[in-house]
Amino acid sequence: MKQISGGVCAAKGFRANGIHCGIRHNRTKRDLALIVSDVPAAAAAVYTTNLVKGAPLTVTKKHLANGVAQAVICNSGNANTCNANGLEIAEAMSALVEQATGICADNVVVASTGVIGQPLNLEPIAAGVGALAASLSDQGSGVAAEAIMTTDTRMKEVAVEFTVGGKLCHMGGIAKGSGMIHPNMATMLVFITTDAAISSEMLQKALSGDIASTFNMLSIDGDTSTNDMVTVLANGLAENAPITSEGADFTAFMEALNTVNVTLCRMIAGDGEGATKLLECKVSGAGTEEAAKKSAKSVICSSLLKAAMFGADANWGRVLCAIGYSGADVDVNKIDVSFRSAKGEIQVCKDGAGVAFSEELAKQILLENEIEILVCVGDGPYSACAWGCDLTYDYVKINGDYRT
Amino acid sequence: MKQISGGVCAAKGFRANGIHCGIRHNRTKRDLALIVSDVPAAAAAVYTTNLVKGAPLTVTKKHLANGVAQAVICNSGNANTCNANGLEIAEAMSALVEQATGICADNVVVASTGVIGQPLNLEPIAAGVGALAASLSDQGSGVAAEAIMTTDTRMKEVAVEFTVGGKLCHMGGIAKGSGMIHPNMATMLVFITTDAAISSEMLQKALSGDIASTFNMLSIDGDTSTNDMVTVLANGLAENAPITSEGADFTAFMEALNTVNVTLCRMIAGDGEGATKLLECKVSGAGTEEAAKKSAKSVICSSLLKAAMFGADANWGRVLCAIGYSGADVDVNKIDVSFRSAKGEIQVCKDGAGVAFSEELAKQILLENEIEILVCVGDGPYSACAWGCDLTYDYVKINGDYRT
Repeated sequence: MKQISGGVCAAKGFRANGIHCGIRHNRTKRDLALIVSDVPAAAAAVYTTNLVKGAPLTVTKKHLANGVAQAVICNSGNANTCNANGLEIAEAMSALVEQATGICADNVVVASTGVIGQPLNLEPIAAGVGALAASLSDQGSGVAAEAIMTTDTRMKEVAVEFTVGGKLCHMGGIAKGSGMIHPNMATMLVFITTDAAISSEMLQKALSGDIASTFNMLSIDGDTSTNDMVTVLANGLAENAPITSEGADFTAFMEALNTVNVTLCRMIAGDGEGATKLLECKVSGAGTEEAAKKSAKSVICSSLLKAAMFGADANWGRVLCAIGYSGADVDVNKIDVSFRSAKGEIQVCKDGAGVAFSEELAKQILLENEIEILVCVGDGPYSACAWGCDLTYDYVKINGDYRT
Repeated sequence: MKQISGGVCAAKGFRANGIHCGIRHNRTKRDLALIVSDVPAAAAAVYTTNLVKGAPLTVTKKHLANGVAQAVICNSGNANTCNANGLEIAEAMSALVEQATGICADNVVVASTGVIGQPLNLEPIAAGVGALAASLSDQGSGVAAEAIMTTDTRMKEVAVEFTVGGKLCHMGGIAKGSGMIHPNMATMLVFITTDAAISSEMLQKALSGDIASTFNMLSIDGDTSTNDMVTVLANGLAENAPITSEGADFTAFMEALNTVNVTLCRMIAGDGEGATKLLECKVSGAGTEEAAKKSAKSVICSSLLKAAMFGADANWGRVLCAIGYSGADVDVNKIDVSFRSAKGEIQVCKDGAGVAFSEELAKQILLENEIEILVCVGDGPYSACAWGCDLTYDYVKINGDYRT
């Protein structure tokens, strides 16, 4: 599998665009994105488990009930959540896409990210959607990725090429995550496109299966947002024999999807609010997959461990503590812990107790901006990886400031 | 019920003391506490659920197996956890108490709080325990409370008097919580004494029942420590007819215990690491007790809400978001939210959507240092309260600094 450029436009038949339409006051920040496929595509999605759900998710779920979609519209600056007219506005956004592109409103994925509980003004979207559609381009992934950012500091896109049944396929994605302009948001949105031919059932199976070990293993601050959503559109223009069951083709597709998702996970974690470091916790030797996942995620979610990583402090006791309360079925007397980065690797705990180590080397390793926390919990066959970031003054600043 | 002075020495027949013995380098900080009862007392305890448990907890659990205790020894500065010789050291601490006081080592509660994973040196304890025991006093609660502090900024003690079967009884407690000298600790310890006569079975029932709505509803940073413990010693010197079953006497005892525990919970939350505010989330109108508790605790644990409270920002969307992912069975379209403090009360959300409110008044209310977050989730009969604190720069500073 090869990483390529092009993001959501890397796959055949997809075009995108992103503009400033005026939802945000800052004219230099794009706030409306559109992605379209030349032909209707099989579609799948996963949504936040928060009972408080953004209105766009409800509308998208309805539109994807038949497994088909052809466009994605997404605004930033306002989450269109906890508003009395939220569903109406989300449907109106779909209708505007139909007017501007001819794509049936029922085939539109709608997403919004931004402040909760403030009515979303449709006017700037209505005024801008014509220009947005008119300049759709196969070079448009980057501006679309920019338009969905909130306080993300970096645009997030990825694309790969892979082979299914001898046919060259492409898959790409854009994401926003863990940024806030105002508090109340914390939303993660991921839009993936591919030209591989796959049934919507198998597409959903691939997505649901993969997120269990990718986006569901990602945490910035432990707060599950109201607007999280990951969607995949597969338009079949690669002309492979459609994937309708498990087998080699499905496996190839899953590998591509996993590469795209892991790459986006790492990008989101590394750009978490206020983050100075990407943290990857790799747990091995677990007796069950559940124990491996619970352990890895608990470490990544620990405020104490996150603050220690900010301080480049090799506080392995916090790793053990987090595994101890994770609910994972592990023997705490068999846990080994090491820290690794570009500067090297150092073991700090063996069989649940400290080992002598060079604090100086540990500090060197932990001052890097990508840190692996390597945990072996026994001699079982299961492993898991979770992604997160450090807890910093800037996280408090970003989320403690008054809304303005 | 009347609040009185005296802390753990308010009840008849209890004496306490706290000294600097040398576990800590700072000679001005007391680091060893002792509490004794003149006679053997019924005893009960609850312990951390963390699989990684401090050695003192294992020893205490063994000593309390027969429901009897007569002394508590506790050091700060070192948690005696994740050490190869931890059990041996904890037993040795009990033996030292026996040597110094004549109280059987098997009747000693042992506790330690401080750094994890560094061997605890018994020498300063052995050298100091004689002086510690020699100056036990019924005025000693305050110095004992000081001796168990880590980075707590305030000493925590409380006492009440109450009546059981016509006899005047007393109950008091000291606590430490949410402080760290070095990272890796986050331990909460509570020692309660009473002169009420109660069987150890009913004492355990009272304690286990009460902590479900007190200490288990408290969160500073979501990290369950390895050394948390709450113990109660009831020596019977009030000469009430012993409480051996449910009824009016048990109810009176439970009320006293709840008052002591709620007071200590509020003290611990308000002195959370880096905290500038005590947060109390009061949820009413829930259909089940579980829904009320899950909702309240989820709000108190939300990093986003905690950071908003630090910024005195009336971000009610974060309250809804936290309830939405709490797992509580509630109708999110029926949630009302208000904020209240000494400066007044303001409603910010009704039926799951925002209402117009004065941002100026909201800010005035939230700038106070004790904030109530009032949530009504419907018209059910259940309510719950949870305690926490804001997330501040100082939390990151305290926990991000290098160990020294």
